[in-house]
Amino acid sequence: MGGVIDERDARLLLTQWCEAGDAAVGLRVRERGPGAVVEEILAGVSPLPDSAGAGGRVRPGTSLGDAMTRWIEPARATAERIGARYVVPGDPEWPTQLQDLRDRSPWGLWVAGAGNLRLLALRSISVVGARSATAYGESIARELAAHLAESGWLTVSGGAFGIDAAAHRGAIAAAGTTACVLAGGIDVPYPRSHADLLARIRETGVLVSEAPLGGAAMRHRFLTRNRLIAALSRGTVLVEAAVRSGGRSTVREAREINRVVMAFPGPVTSPMSAGCHVVIRDEGVHLVTSPREVLALVEGRLAPRDEGHSAVEDDLDWRQRRVLDAVPVRRVAPLSSIASLSGLGMTEAMAALGMLDALGLVARKGDGWVRART
Amino acid sequence: MGGVIDERDARLLLTQWCEAGDAAVGLRVRERGPGAVVEEILAGVSPLPDSAGAGGRVRPGTSLGDAMTRWIEPARATAERIGARYVVPGDPEWPTQLQDLRDRSPWGLWVAGAGNLRLLALRSISVVGARSATAYGESIARELAAHLAESGWLTVSGGAFGIDAAAHRGAIAAAGTTACVLAGGIDVPYPRSHADLLARIRETGVLVSEAPLGGAAMRHRFLTRNRLIAALSRGTVLVEAAVRSGGRSTVREAREINRVVMAFPGPVTSPMSAGCHVVIRDEGVHLVTSPREVLALVEGRLAPRDEGHSAVEDDLDWRQRRVLDAVPVRRVAPLSSIASLSGLGMTEAMAALGMLDALGLVARKGDGWVRART
Repeated sequence: MGGVIDERDARLLLTQWCEAGDAAVGLRVRERGPGAVVEEILAGVSPLPDSAGAGGRVRPGTSLGDAMTRWIEPARATAERIGARYVVPGDPEWPTQLQDLRDRSPWGLWVAGAGNLRLLALRSISVVGARSATAYGESIARELAAHLAESGWLTVSGGAFGIDAAAHRGAIAAAGTTACVLAGGIDVPYPRSHADLLARIRETGVLVSEAPLGGAAMRHRFLTRNRLIAALSRGTVLVEAAVRSGGRSTVREAREINRVVMAFPGPVTSPMSAGCHVVIRDEGVHLVTSPREVLALVEGRLAPRDEGHSAVEDDLDWRQRRVLDAVPVRRVAPLSSIASLSGLGMTEAMAALGMLDALGLVARKGDGWVRART
Repeated sequence: MGGVIDERDARLLLTQWCEAGDAAVGLRVRERGPGAVVEEILAGVSPLPDSAGAGGRVRPGTSLGDAMTRWIEPARATAERIGARYVVPGDPEWPTQLQDLRDRSPWGLWVAGAGNLRLLALRSISVVGARSATAYGESIARELAAHLAESGWLTVSGGAFGIDAAAHRGAIAAAGTTACVLAGGIDVPYPRSHADLLARIRETGVLVSEAPLGGAAMRHRFLTRNRLIAALSRGTVLVEAAVRSGGRSTVREAREINRVVMAFPGPVTSPMSAGCHVVIRDEGVHLVTSPREVLALVEGRLAPRDEGHSAVEDDLDWRQRRVLDAVPVRRVAPLSSIASLSGLGMTEAMAALGMLDALGLVARKGDGWVRART
């Protein structure tokens, strides 16, 4: 059966079958590839954790054809109906910054909405915090997201009540884009009363989920989901949090992958600021008091290093990097010369230039291209 | 004239003549002794900064006798009238921890009140902050001082409106002791409307000033005064402060002499918490959210080190240290054997034991003494 199954389908099967964030399966996938892991599962050679997604459990001895019928085809149909896309590593929309999660990287992501997840995630900050937020916290989240929107940054959050919703709404109100990373399936609006908010987010931003279609927003999925919020953004801001809270898990995930992690202080009399004070004091989290400070910290980290090379460039794939190298710094070059210098076809070179343009690394001038000034 | 003038009188003349905290004069005093410096001044050999104290400026050629008549005698008379004492290095009440100020140590201190400044300062925390404090800050200051009082710690502050007054009042309300370090003369209640509060502080605690008797509470004296607040306490807590504020100078002084420095966060919307957030973020000041955390940090610093030797012991003079060494760890020894072992007279040894007892380093058992368990 080796090599029969397409990698995208294999990843989709893993998404529909097994819980995300499992480092043991992640390691197997990295070592043997998703196709081989799926084949082992179908053959009953390796056991699989219970799935809570649509389509039920895999029985050993299931054929690839059966698997296509039972999981892939229904998923494709659902995706078409709801207007979602399944994004895997190597796709133009795959956020390469997820590689920081190593073996805990998702098999794939369900994405819905007008935005390009990869591009948006390059300039994004997650704003997270308590569901039972106070007016103080909600106002901070709203103003922070609005400021990020006005500065061209994406606000990432989790769609929950309280801080999450205030952040999404602040971005939308400022005509900015926002991304919501769902814990359950991308076709399962959660919380249900946020269905309208999630629909608004899709209009200009994105909904993202690594859960199987139809997957319920179960407790453990919130914790694994938090690593995606952290990894999909350049920095994480904790706005309000009780001492024991989910927001602190996002902070922990963000710190683990070396993101800029920030928290807003608040009155010491407010239990909803106590978690922020703990992480500032005990976990080396930056104390921030304004949106400007948040951006200064994140932009400081992304600023060009001594080698004249920015962190944004780390996220380019080899084609984009080669095209960037082929774009002259001082004069304008036509597409044809850039394509030939980079050893790529015109279409590939054009696609790469589009991405580089969106990242602000190159600029179109008349009929050609030049490096953008940083 | 060498050696004619008593050191205490020389220091008192310096206090009445020159502004405190002048490191150049401090260095001269340390190198040549206060008597020699006073003689140089009387002889007109070395110039002197303008004094703003009682008795007017010194004219070159003034005799020691004239100086006694013009400055020492009136000062003694005032001191007797107001019940103040002049304390100098070497006195049992001199806080040896002021040595951390090095050349910026005061020539002497005017002290009034029922408390023993040296003993109180050994277990003391300064609580400082904005004059235009908010209800939030005043409530923190009050509760912090009350908690310190209940735990047997002195609250040191500066007697000003706002945080200072709330701290003094919190200590008094909890039947604790508090010390007020005045910027002007100890006989000049400032602010005037706090005359009653200052009188209450004297009843169980102490008023302290390095300014000359009759000295006005001038702006520059607040800044030099702040180093005394810092040095007279084991740790400094900034409760509320604007970004530009006197409280931040106390924080700076405390950090400079390696005290534990702490600040309370507050709402980011409050300008009165902005100074606290700045020092937490940029000056390595500990974020604290409760009185318990304040005491834990300060007691952690004072806790016995590996050598089985506590920071309190650093403040002992040589007599006390020798007596402490002479007190057995496991058995009880009589005063006579401790005195002979330490090479001191019975009276001196007894005085030292009293101090060591007050510090909790030795304990009286029946007719003798034993080391206290730490």
